[in-house]
Amino acid sequence: MAQRTAGHDCGFLADIVPEARVDFEESRREEFAVDASPHDPTLPDAVVWPHTTEEVSAVLAAANERGVPVTPWSGGSSLEGNAIPAAGGVVLNTVKMDDVSVSPADLQATVGPGIVYDDLNERLGTYGLRFPPGISSGDVATIGGMIANNASGFNAVKYGETRDHVRQLEVVLPDGEVIRCGRGVVKTSSGYSLKDLFVGSEGTLGVVTEATIGLTGIPERKRAALVTFPSDVAATSAVSEMMGFGLEPAAVEYLDTLTVEMINDYREEVSLREEPTLILEFHDNTSGIEEDVEFARGICEDNDATGWEAADEGEMDRVWQARRDALPAYRAHDPELETALLGDIVVPISAYPDIVATIKDASEALDLVVPCVGHAGDGNLHFTPLVDTDDDAAVARAHEFNDRVIERTLELGGTATGEHGVGVGKRKFMRAEHGNAVDLMGTIKDAIDPNGIMNPGKVLPEE
Amino acid sequence: MAQRTAGHDCGFLADIVPEARVDFEESRREEFAVDASPHDPTLPDAVVWPHTTEEVSAVLAAANERGVPVTPWSGGSSLEGNAIPAAGGVVLNTVKMDDVSVSPADLQATVGPGIVYDDLNERLGTYGLRFPPGISSGDVATIGGMIANNASGFNAVKYGETRDHVRQLEVVLPDGEVIRCGRGVVKTSSGYSLKDLFVGSEGTLGVVTEATIGLTGIPERKRAALVTFPSDVAATSAVSEMMGFGLEPAAVEYLDTLTVEMINDYREEVSLREEPTLILEFHDNTSGIEEDVEFARGICEDNDATGWEAADEGEMDRVWQARRDALPAYRAHDPELETALLGDIVVPISAYPDIVATIKDASEALDLVVPCVGHAGDGNLHFTPLVDTDDDAAVARAHEFNDRVIERTLELGGTATGEHGVGVGKRKFMRAEHGNAVDLMGTIKDAIDPNGIMNPGKVLPEE
Repeated sequence: MAQRTAGHDCGFLADIVPEARVDFEESRREEFAVDASPHDPTLPDAVVWPHTTEEVSAVLAAANERGVPVTPWSGGSSLEGNAIPAAGGVVLNTVKMDDVSVSPADLQATVGPGIVYDDLNERLGTYGLRFPPGISSGDVATIGGMIANNASGFNAVKYGETRDHVRQLEVVLPDGEVIRCGRGVVKTSSGYSLKDLFVGSEGTLGVVTEATIGLTGIPERKRAALVTFPSDVAATSAVSEMMGFGLEPAAVEYLDTLTVEMINDYREEVSLREEPTLILEFHDNTSGIEEDVEFARGICEDNDATGWEAADEGEMDRVWQARRDALPAYRAHDPELETALLGDIVVPISAYPDIVATIKDASEALDLVVPCVGHAGDGNLHFTPLVDTDDDAAVARAHEFNDRVIERTLELGGTATGEHGVGVGKRKFMRAEHGNAVDLMGTIKDAIDPNGIMNPGKVLPEE
Repeated sequence: MAQRTAGHDCGFLADIVPEARVDFEESRREEFAVDASPHDPTLPDAVVWPHTTEEVSAVLAAANERGVPVTPWSGGSSLEGNAIPAAGGVVLNTVKMDDVSVSPADLQATVGPGIVYDDLNERLGTYGLRFPPGISSGDVATIGGMIANNASGFNAVKYGETRDHVRQLEVVLPDGEVIRCGRGVVKTSSGYSLKDLFVGSEGTLGVVTEATIGLTGIPERKRAALVTFPSDVAATSAVSEMMGFGLEPAAVEYLDTLTVEMINDYREEVSLREEPTLILEFHDNTSGIEEDVEFARGICEDNDATGWEAADEGEMDRVWQARRDALPAYRAHDPELETALLGDIVVPISAYPDIVATIKDASEALDLVVPCVGHAGDGNLHFTPLVDTDDDAAVARAHEFNDRVIERTLELGGTATGEHGVGVGKRKFMRAEHGNAVDLMGTIKDAIDPNGIMNPGKVLPEE
């Protein structure tokens, strides 16, 4: 059952959009009290589905006048409580704003925030193009949410984060004013990069109502490989060498031994070597891809790889199945254990062995089951403490574990979140990570949203 | 002779740095009254060379208390008056802050703002690495200036702008407070991207005292080609097709017919076809580079190319000589004519033929000689009206020309500056380009620099 807040009168929404596009019913509001994270649900007072920038502007202007919180929402697949309406008020759902206009010659598209990542890529595919960050929740996540969280995933190691592709944004500010930031061109040095301020601001500064994003061609050739190593140090050293030698793999996924064991248990017909594992993917338009694959293989062999299973494009699914099975395998491992929290750290690549060792040590010391996977080419690692969530002591140990790993991450120069955003869960690490730069973030928040209506309770620390 | 401002008492500097690192002598101050642009010089009241972040902090805190303007300065190669101390006061010269610390395994380096681009790349070369934006003034420009202007050049089409490589910045705010923005990792979603606010802010928000930047490997193989076309439309269509088919050239330079004619006049032994010309460069680690070159050649032939001269890595200099000769050829064309201003627009690639035609039409209508070169792969175009700068009417026509071209650029969705920044010269186009988003830039400027001491007279429009 979702928490209730003091309650805000949101009746003004009925004057802005037709009746069918605003909902005050509790049963409907419950759907928007949660995101995909383990964070506590909070019930909004109303949900509104605007169709146009003008409607978003009218909702924000009215809410701002009344001091009613507004939480932007679309796919709801966020993993740190980013979309939970923590202070109640209005959930502003942009999912109906899903127009797509493609300019193939300019390798760019102008899209509404509500378009789903996979749907967009299906549309782009007819032009031989794609929007490439490669997120895991692509069947649910929308471009608006991806911009809000600066989302990325498997393919970011080659193609970059969402930020790297955003060229222009239309944004409605908290007082209802509509601005355009950036330009629909490859590069510009014209003034402050406001679009970069909104990318990753998690809906705390305004609502993105349109985005012009850069695209890439669909590569002519793809290859993949599944590689096993005798130790975490060997696997992560191979990653570090590959990147250092200037290879540009399209994906470098790390699976720890515990994850591989759980996958073997989960899928009867699978019997992977129960060792630290990498899944590599390469994209290219030329036959040079074979040289890159061979070069990567050489680096893996130099690091004592115990197995190398390569796959052509037609067989890549088989190699990737292990990675796709990881989360279902965690869930199936023990029906009494659930995900207490989702780690999402990034360290400099050279520190990957250190942080993997830290995780092993801390999970042993705290008697926790913590399988890990990660986009190792970026230095990104996801850890998933599995606990009986009714056992308060176990949940507390999971949080203690998280604190220890993030403390070490920050000591190593890393970040507490590589792709999930700060949301509710990472606020407490903001000052440790950014020091007094957090105060400047607060200054900017206050300057843009003086009434604090935009997605309150997120990103900036409670202090 | 440099303009004088009302004058500011900068004696406080002598209490902060040793005598040898502050200068009040007019002859010395004259050196720092100009950048590399045709904009009017303005004399600073003092020049100071800090060695440390603490000294920068002390200078800013003292200047802020006294309301004395501070203009950060290092290479002085800016092309829009960005580094001219327009309101007098202190020139804060960071050129002595040139430490370099390389972390090869992490493909990153932490550097002082004063390190010169070419010197940095020489240091990085010993690790097989480079900082790749590829600017023309690399023998003078510093990383601090590149960050301030979000500089880029030849190779940005493949490797991106300076912004794309900046991971972490240490910044001294106008009141002397020192903050760190971003982290030394490949990606992060932790809070507002303050580092992106400082990149491209041209020293109007603070002083960058240290930067951690991402690096790339030096490619194993390089190829280049010089291609001629019967028309601008044919040349620019070839560019658009190459990019649209997902080729990733490392450089795509366009030279208009007038530029080629001037190069032929300038260098006796050269006799290029006097037609629109492209210089292409490709980088790769594999033999796939030959396929990319052949694919590009096919696209050029489909667009009626009249000549194709390919070059292996050893002969690339020959192909590039034409591009290097362009500016000297402009200067040599007619000793009585000088550069009135430097165009630096970017349009969506599909609009390149339109803007080239606009330039031809406007130069004819206004009776001006305007040769053009451009980083066409980015949609970036530089135009250079050559006029007798003592002829006020001719200078006025050059500015009228600039206004017309930028008006059309903005209609086409482009930007008034792709890599030179706003400085003094592009302020008047800011509202046309950004609309009311300029007001939000002003809000941010006021929040961070309430006394307006940082590089006054730049970026934001006078209104």
